[in-house]
Amino acid sequence: MAVEIERKFLVISDGWRAGADAGRILRQGYVAHDGDASVRVRLSGNEAWLTVKSGRTGLVRDEFEYAIPAADAAEMLDRLCADRVVGKTRYRVPHDGKVWEVDVFAGAVEGLILAEVEMHSVDERFDLPDWVGGEVTNDPRFRNSAIALLQGFETAD
Amino acid sequence: MAVEIERKFLVISDGWRAGADAGRILRQGYVAHDGDASVRVRLSGNEAWLTVKSGRTGLVRDEFEYAIPAADAAEMLDRLCADRVVGKTRYRVPHDGKVWEVDVFAGAVEGLILAEVEMHSVDERFDLPDWVGGEVTNDPRFRNSAIALLQGFETAD
Repeated sequence: MAVEIERKFLVISDGWRAGADAGRILRQGYVAHDGDASVRVRLSGNEAWLTVKSGRTGLVRDEFEYAIPAADAAEMLDRLCADRVVGKTRYRVPHDGKVWEVDVFAGAVEGLILAEVEMHSVDERFDLPDWVGGEVTNDPRFRNSAIALLQGFETAD
Repeated sequence: MAVEIERKFLVISDGWRAGADAGRILRQGYVAHDGDASVRVRLSGNEAWLTVKSGRTGLVRDEFEYAIPAADAAEMLDRLCADRVVGKTRYRVPHDGKVWEVDVFAGAVEGLILAEVEMHSVDERFDLPDWVGGEVTNDPRFRNSAIALLQGFETAD
């Protein structure tokens, strides 16, 4: 098991684009999601992963991730995830010694852009780029599983 | 993906024990379970598997199964599956050219014994051993995920 420590922010300007890589298109969905855990399948080109995460919202989450055949992932997305599939393009954006991941969502939540940064410890200090706005780490509306369920959200930060 | 075709029966006598192997103890739980799919973790000694199954009850189900580290499985059972864990001993019992699996459950459903047989096609014909009673293939109460939720059941066949 890995423990995932990450913080998540709304993106408020295009300032990140200058430093971003070419991005990669991801398709991901939730094969099951209940109070204790969510199970996500993610497909990116010929690579795919099945990920079990604990159901808590916030900074630190248990995460178990396994590479799986891309064909399996495609079948799960088509057959088991129903309408709980989101597409997004993920860009890597270096900033002040850390690599941020900026997710540009497509489909029903088009227009939503979120930035995540992984931390080594819960009290790590780092510089916030000026293109991020309000933090949504603890906001359940911005969990990927919630976005996949197309729950309503407001983009005010 | 594999398609799992199996039939499940109540066990009505100890007649299977004479032909059974030594059995192996399994601990399994559901990390997530909702309308479309269930995700099961199963631990047997040093081996473990994560299995995604479509939510339908009955003869034919989609199944995606991956071997995972036993340590991961133990952590998931302890941390994510909460009270949805069942223990059972699984015996292999050859009968008339097929190998039946007889599950003797422990814990809250102690006393329950079920027999499963895997089929090559939905219309395969095979001989029923005299120690099986009523078929429960299509009875949602006898799905493993339902048993894990400790839902009530009656053993009348």
